[in-house]
Amino acid sequence: MKNITILGSTGSIGINALNVIDNLDEDYKVFGLSAYKNIDTILAQIKKYKPEVVAIADLSAANSVKEKLNNYDVSILSGRSGLLELASIADVDLLLNALVGSSGMEPTICAIKSSVDVALSNKESLVMAGEIIESEKNKSGAKIFPVDSEHSAIWQCLVGEKIGEVEKIILTGSGGPFRTRDISTLIDVKIQDALNHPNWEMGKKITIDSASMMNKGLEVIETKWLFGIESNRIEIVIHPESIIHSMVEFKDKSVKAQLGIPDMKVPIQYALTYPDRKSSMWESLDLSKIGSLNFEPPNFERFPCISLAYESLKKGGTYPAVLNVANEQAVYRFLNSEITFTDIPIIIEQACDKHDYILHPTLEELLFLENWTVDFVKSFKTKD
Amino acid sequence: MKNITILGSTGSIGINALNVIDNLDEDYKVFGLSAYKNIDTILAQIKKYKPEVVAIADLSAANSVKEKLNNYDVSILSGRSGLLELASIADVDLLLNALVGSSGMEPTICAIKSSVDVALSNKESLVMAGEIIESEKNKSGAKIFPVDSEHSAIWQCLVGEKIGEVEKIILTGSGGPFRTRDISTLIDVKIQDALNHPNWEMGKKITIDSASMMNKGLEVIETKWLFGIESNRIEIVIHPESIIHSMVEFKDKSVKAQLGIPDMKVPIQYALTYPDRKSSMWESLDLSKIGSLNFEPPNFERFPCISLAYESLKKGGTYPAVLNVANEQAVYRFLNSEITFTDIPIIIEQACDKHDYILHPTLEELLFLENWTVDFVKSFKTKD
Repeated sequence: MKNITILGSTGSIGINALNVIDNLDEDYKVFGLSAYKNIDTILAQIKKYKPEVVAIADLSAANSVKEKLNNYDVSILSGRSGLLELASIADVDLLLNALVGSSGMEPTICAIKSSVDVALSNKESLVMAGEIIESEKNKSGAKIFPVDSEHSAIWQCLVGEKIGEVEKIILTGSGGPFRTRDISTLIDVKIQDALNHPNWEMGKKITIDSASMMNKGLEVIETKWLFGIESNRIEIVIHPESIIHSMVEFKDKSVKAQLGIPDMKVPIQYALTYPDRKSSMWESLDLSKIGSLNFEPPNFERFPCISLAYESLKKGGTYPAVLNVANEQAVYRFLNSEITFTDIPIIIEQACDKHDYILHPTLEELLFLENWTVDFVKSFKTKD
Repeated sequence: MKNITILGSTGSIGINALNVIDNLDEDYKVFGLSAYKNIDTILAQIKKYKPEVVAIADLSAANSVKEKLNNYDVSILSGRSGLLELASIADVDLLLNALVGSSGMEPTICAIKSSVDVALSNKESLVMAGEIIESEKNKSGAKIFPVDSEHSAIWQCLVGEKIGEVEKIILTGSGGPFRTRDISTLIDVKIQDALNHPNWEMGKKITIDSASMMNKGLEVIETKWLFGIESNRIEIVIHPESIIHSMVEFKDKSVKAQLGIPDMKVPIQYALTYPDRKSSMWESLDLSKIGSLNFEPPNFERFPCISLAYESLKKGGTYPAVLNVANEQAVYRFLNSEITFTDIPIIIEQACDKHDYILHPTLEELLFLENWTVDFVKSFKTKD
């Protein structure tokens, strides 16, 4: 019996994870859940999975849930502090961090400090606090299992292999909805265009990041921290069908890849059952039916966010954290129709340039910088 | 220092293997070499690699070599018995069996009996004597490392994985030169057409087997013995570019693949250096440059040899051995312009139907059956 906590259980990854647990023959006990303010979904999940602890970040939503569960044997924690308290509970075998954005960083650190292994879907954790998490992992012995399809692919390709024998890591990216669109029209991108991802059904934030390919940039940074590979040995290849989820080239020129129908349940399940693999009823890959897999180099002019991410990783220190928060806030402003799609990289670059750089930031310094970056992006005036 | 013997060192795989050894930084000592009757090449190899023992199967070629190496400190063995003697020498770390055809079966058994690990390029060994080799491996503890690009791919995909968690194995095949040719014209195939493989440079026998896709059929049988997977869980997919060398689907629907530029030096090197990988200067895979990978189901009507191979595996016992020898002899008759390309599967089917079936043949029974099949094919009269 594995005790599992899912942070962000009402989001896309959280719901998929509960679906995976439903279908596993082995018993997984849902110990904890967390939601932001989706009351109906979290109530249904509490009734179905009977967790011991639930954290609800929004205070009034937390109160509503408490009222409706008067007779239930469940402990409801509320607010940001409640979320961090849930993430710190040591009596858990695996914490799936499926929170969206930089708010996911601290809970990852809490779990690692409590020696709890983390199935990490929140890529911002390592992008922002890679060095701190690395150091806490070394102290507590806790492990991180990637849940992103790309990093899960790399992880699977590396099973039984030696990291010192890796020549390079090749992240695949679909290129998103704007892979072939006339570059000069990207300034006019509408929110609905950007939310229309060709292959993956995901939350809004990550779907916009896929359209700008900042998602791939963040994955490059995450790859460095997950596998200890420097940026000059991490490449991106555009693969519109999203069937090959990523690849590893070894020093002998042999390449290993992990493939499958685009379905987040597969990498989620692998992180849950690792080092075992369990039977599943997800769709099987039939390459004859798919017919053709295509590849092209990434276009850095079309997708300036990729270059910004590589640069921030090379500069190190606080650069990736600022890049990430600036991107997040810029995406929210885009989704709020306050800026254009092409303003996103402009804002990120300025935030990176103007922040007070620290080579080895503490958690407190990162949190301060997060606030600074939020304010910077909020006060950013576009030319219009 | 690894002591290595290469059987068939003057053939395509043997020459590639010596090229691999030239380029490895670690020291590999070439202990033994064998040739059929290519005097010039074996003399040059003896002078360069200074092996301790050399076997030359053709008696007059052996005598010529002995004369020319009067002052050399090398032991020259001759004839079939000399080859088997070389294969039996226990003071060797790895024997690469790169012999062509059923003549490679006994040397594999000799090495395994002497507790020598075998890097197996001779697929006929396991096709014919899978059960015997399995039993000898269990007795001696010797291991078999596949050298075929397909089986090396599967082997690499299985590193660190559990065989019980495999759902199926997917062998890729280029489809050879006749993948799209009008089926009704296959009867008129010329030898040169069949020798014109689109991707791989190989010996004549295996190139014809690729054109008839019997090569893929033999690989299905070999897969069963190498990995213990039954035929109903071994699939073939046509992949004209030969970049994905094969795949494994696991029970959780995750698929792993091994890829690379078609170059036998990569799987040869992996078998030599396993469990390590060593840096190499072979060409790196660039999928952006290749652009597109294509897949289609195999056409069993076009390639009846595939069905014959699956059937023989299902029937078991002596069927695969007879299939293999009949194919080999039919290919030689085709290369000798004695039969048409489409006679090959007809002859094989008849040999399989007419042979005296044994469920668990001994080595002696297999050798008897080999002779019977050779005679059967030689005396086969085509309609013309």
